[in-house]
Amino acid sequence: MRPLKYINQNEKVGMMIGEILSTGDEVCLGSVIDSNSAHISAGLDEIGIRVTRHSCVGDDMVELVAAMAEIGSRADIAVITGGLGPTVDDLTAEAAAMAAGADLLLDPVASKSIETYFAGFSRKMAGSDIKQAMLPCGATPIVNTCGTAPGFIFKIGRCRCYFLPGVPKEMKAMLSLSVIPDIAVYQGLEKSVTLRRELSVFGLPEALVNEKLKGFKLLFPMVKLGMIARFPVITVKMTAIGTDRKILADEIEKSGRWSADQLGDKVFSLEGRSMEAEIASLLVKNHATIAVAESCTGGLISHLLTNIAGSSDYFLFSGITYSNDAKRKILGVPEETLITYGAVSEETVKEMADGVRRISGATLGLATSGIAGPTGGTDERPVGTMCIGISLPDKTVAYRFNSPFKERLSNKQIFAICALDLLRKQLLMAS
Amino acid sequence: MRPLKYINQNEKVGMMIGEILSTGDEVCLGSVIDSNSAHISAGLDEIGIRVTRHSCVGDDMVELVAAMAEIGSRADIAVITGGLGPTVDDLTAEAAAMAAGADLLLDPVASKSIETYFAGFSRKMAGSDIKQAMLPCGATPIVNTCGTAPGFIFKIGRCRCYFLPGVPKEMKAMLSLSVIPDIAVYQGLEKSVTLRRELSVFGLPEALVNEKLKGFKLLFPMVKLGMIARFPVITVKMTAIGTDRKILADEIEKSGRWSADQLGDKVFSLEGRSMEAEIASLLVKNHATIAVAESCTGGLISHLLTNIAGSSDYFLFSGITYSNDAKRKILGVPEETLITYGAVSEETVKEMADGVRRISGATLGLATSGIAGPTGGTDERPVGTMCIGISLPDKTVAYRFNSPFKERLSNKQIFAICALDLLRKQLLMAS
Repeated sequence: MRPLKYINQNEKVGMMIGEILSTGDEVCLGSVIDSNSAHISAGLDEIGIRVTRHSCVGDDMVELVAAMAEIGSRADIAVITGGLGPTVDDLTAEAAAMAAGADLLLDPVASKSIETYFAGFSRKMAGSDIKQAMLPCGATPIVNTCGTAPGFIFKIGRCRCYFLPGVPKEMKAMLSLSVIPDIAVYQGLEKSVTLRRELSVFGLPEALVNEKLKGFKLLFPMVKLGMIARFPVITVKMTAIGTDRKILADEIEKSGRWSADQLGDKVFSLEGRSMEAEIASLLVKNHATIAVAESCTGGLISHLLTNIAGSSDYFLFSGITYSNDAKRKILGVPEETLITYGAVSEETVKEMADGVRRISGATLGLATSGIAGPTGGTDERPVGTMCIGISLPDKTVAYRFNSPFKERLSNKQIFAICALDLLRKQLLMAS
Repeated sequence: MRPLKYINQNEKVGMMIGEILSTGDEVCLGSVIDSNSAHISAGLDEIGIRVTRHSCVGDDMVELVAAMAEIGSRADIAVITGGLGPTVDDLTAEAAAMAAGADLLLDPVASKSIETYFAGFSRKMAGSDIKQAMLPCGATPIVNTCGTAPGFIFKIGRCRCYFLPGVPKEMKAMLSLSVIPDIAVYQGLEKSVTLRRELSVFGLPEALVNEKLKGFKLLFPMVKLGMIARFPVITVKMTAIGTDRKILADEIEKSGRWSADQLGDKVFSLEGRSMEAEIASLLVKNHATIAVAESCTGGLISHLLTNIAGSSDYFLFSGITYSNDAKRKILGVPEETLITYGAVSEETVKEMADGVRRISGATLGLATSGIAGPTGGTDERPVGTMCIGISLPDKTVAYRFNSPFKERLSNKQIFAICALDLLRKQLLMAS
């Protein structure tokens, strides 16, 4: 093997081929959306595995054995989820044994680990639980730290298969604690280092982010570039794998800085954090407290801010003042402002922001008023129009934003993140 | 063919086999979660197609052709999404032609439909747009009413394949308008009727819902039972397909009533609606308005209520009173109540509900106070404890609820739906 300094992420040749198989009627028949496969895929992709296919089959022995045998002939490594539990529907271990022509045996290590797990709840193993310790002959158990069913590693055909439970929490823990490190050893990368950098981006569509980072591959051949879109935020991910930590750290630092430069002020976090987490740490850093007056965002800004544990330290109050009456009575917006300028105006959101700051005693006030749709738009203020007011100790500012969407939920989401992003920029100027 | 009165949903033999293939690097490498396949799967399952496998491959010609050829040898019908756009990454039509040994030809109907779509925006077709009208020889175009790229129907091996765009909105419209009806004709069910019933359930885990509906299959062999879990709500779906509308209507009615009886007051909608939609229609029906005082739910109740278009008619105000100070100053909760009973108490939420009703002038006041976690719990009030207050014109009531979760977001979600469910029951008593 060549001495590994770094993995050239543009080289497909020589990369191990990976596949993912999720099992279970609930996924195959559409009762639940398979979010496991995307998580696993992104994890494998990061460590230089070329993921070529995902499959899903139901709880059906013939289908399971066929899918596993095919994977055994096509892939170098595979992650297979689901069907490891104690019920009669759980066929995965038996199917794996059959696909490889092996027997099922009671694995003493797996049996012990199930016993230990139950002992934590002062419970004894039941008869049906034993089934979860029956593994194909030659399999190596993978410890499950947050559930009953152990996983296992087992070779089918040419493929090293990692079998994990379908419960996302258990799967994720086992993937990062056991599977990814084992694959690194299997790839001959046991002494490798993986360095990551993530940028959170708001205000650019995915195609434009791509466009702006077009030169990346040529400039940073050691660094793998990825992107995850969760409307309306895009996370740009950089990963570098190799053995020389210094070179990698230098490259990932440079590539991160270059990307941040290309994307300018659309980047709101250099650590891949959520907008609400970013606001939280800026508020804490500035020893500031906040109060919110929401109209068109209808509580979503408050919901986001209070998703952060510890938000009670700085989040004092929010008033969802949908009606003009509430804007007047609770926030003290003058009747005249509402009549002269309308509810969706810079003047009104300034009064709202000042009002909520005044009644709550917070350092900062944030206010929104707009038209989320689908109805309520006019020629002058079409659906997608929003005004944002920010009340600061020394001044009050207002902005106007136009969303291209006509759909209520999309608009509430983009409105909320846009308002928080404007607040973030004010907090940065203040700190 | 036997005269079809109804499809016996327990008979697997004789059912057509369906597969789903989603394509694109963004799905295969884990940048986006594939929600299309679950939607398609549930749709096919409903009309009696036995979905045996989902697959996903990236934008790679070799992988695409291999996957399509395999599906052509295994399935009777397939829905294939993604890769129909104008860019060089969009390989689906070419791969389909290759998998079937056919040529690509400019389809005049598809070309016309793209032209018509652009004309709607007063835009002309660009050169790269023509690519989207190049279909495998023998394909039948499927009209795309909300996007550029037309879909098409094309036989590969023994399989009738439906090619659709990957954009969820376009895919969903084309699936229900064109694909599902075409499959009905293909199955010889063109004169068939599909009747549906959905129940929305809150307060029971999936396993218990299953347990309570155990006798369903035997009692109603004509009706297919399905379940979709979107935490913390479960939707129970019943579907009956056949030619005799009267018999089917009778059966689906009986099966719906039986299921609702089994699940008792855990069913909050007999039409499969969301909790917030149910509350909305009850408020409108009762000519009632509402105001909310949220502590532990942090704005989520308001966010849910304002997700409903037209909510400004009955949603007057919400105060997110995280701090005790805000509870006192804004809602007028007496200092003494907070000191004597604590913020998380029946007494405090009653004062909060009364206070928000009073200051807003709404017919009803709803209040929450609790511990969402992960920290903040005590022996007496562990994480997961919530008190709910409802202020009505003639009385004020309070409840206590304990969630088994320790995680903040899960608790906010279950708290919000629980509070709305209690409000719903009060509204039902009043109407």
